[in-house]
Amino acid sequence: MNRYTISALVSNKSGVLTRVAALFARRGYNIESLSVCKTEDDSLSRMTIVLCGDDYILSQMMKQMDKLIDVKKIQRMPEEAVSRELLLVKIKSDEKTRTQIFEISQIFRASVVDVSPEATILELTGKPAKLDGFVTMLMPYGIMELARTGITSISRGNDCIRNNADYKEKI
Amino acid sequence: MNRYTISALVSNKSGVLTRVAALFARRGYNIESLSVCKTEDDSLSRMTIVLCGDDYILSQMMKQMDKLIDVKKIQRMPEEAVSRELLLVKIKSDEKTRTQIFEISQIFRASVVDVSPEATILELTGKPAKLDGFVTMLMPYGIMELARTGITSISRGNDCIRNNADYKEKI
Repeated sequence: MNRYTISALVSNKSGVLTRVAALFARRGYNIESLSVCKTEDDSLSRMTIVLCGDDYILSQMMKQMDKLIDVKKIQRMPEEAVSRELLLVKIKSDEKTRTQIFEISQIFRASVVDVSPEATILELTGKPAKLDGFVTMLMPYGIMELARTGITSISRGNDCIRNNADYKEKI
Repeated sequence: MNRYTISALVSNKSGVLTRVAALFARRGYNIESLSVCKTEDDSLSRMTIVLCGDDYILSQMMKQMDKLIDVKKIQRMPEEAVSRELLLVKIKSDEKTRTQIFEISQIFRASVVDVSPEATILELTGKPAKLDGFVTMLMPYGIMELARTGITSISRGNDCIRNNADYKEKI
């Protein structure tokens, strides 16, 4: 089982997410993470999907997504692309454990967002593996709440999935 | 039109996203941003939805979502909750404009992820309004590609939406 990141530019309108999600659900493929948000162009959203599976599943899903009229452009993100995720985590903490938690945060370069007598909220961005490592280190203290955005990704160098000439061909 | 953030704990399995997305699509409500990713408990994912609308739309959608068997817990995030979003942006840059772009980045505390002769990739986390401001400042240089994760959010203090006793009631 490999992990693939798919980045797609889609129309920013009601129903698009349902259609994309339905493609995966119909085949019983689970999406590991998904994030969708508007872009600098109000008519377009960018959807980033992380999929677990093999090459066959990946190529099948990319073809199926590409057939949707609301999917303007789709790309498999290469390994070397810039991929980032954001994590917010609330951990049980008191006078004794707080220093240890702050030390772990410094090593991972996490930032402290909020402290209350019994809890600390930390924020960390990075690749998923880094976030997983951070969570593992914090587990023993007691995780009260955890929220991750899922990956968002763009390619390095001068390549560019956002290109008027490109995606307008399809409209 | 107000902006509301809904945070939900859902089963981590195929089809859940489709069911949630379909609830919104059926009524023609567009989701402004959505992020979904696993939590520290492999059987659960956290879904964070930003919805534009009025109080009626919000209460209707929360009731509808709560009816789904796979939605274990749902909460409207209050204004004072910790809400964060991650932005990756690739901007056209050359010897002349690079310094200006770096200056803007420093003001917003963005970090430079990659530089090539014609482009710079920047990373920024924060509240959506901060990210919007950053994008506005970078627009004149030429945005080549932009990816945002959408909001993820957790409550301050000792409150906690993730609570075994709570969500197991519904199972």
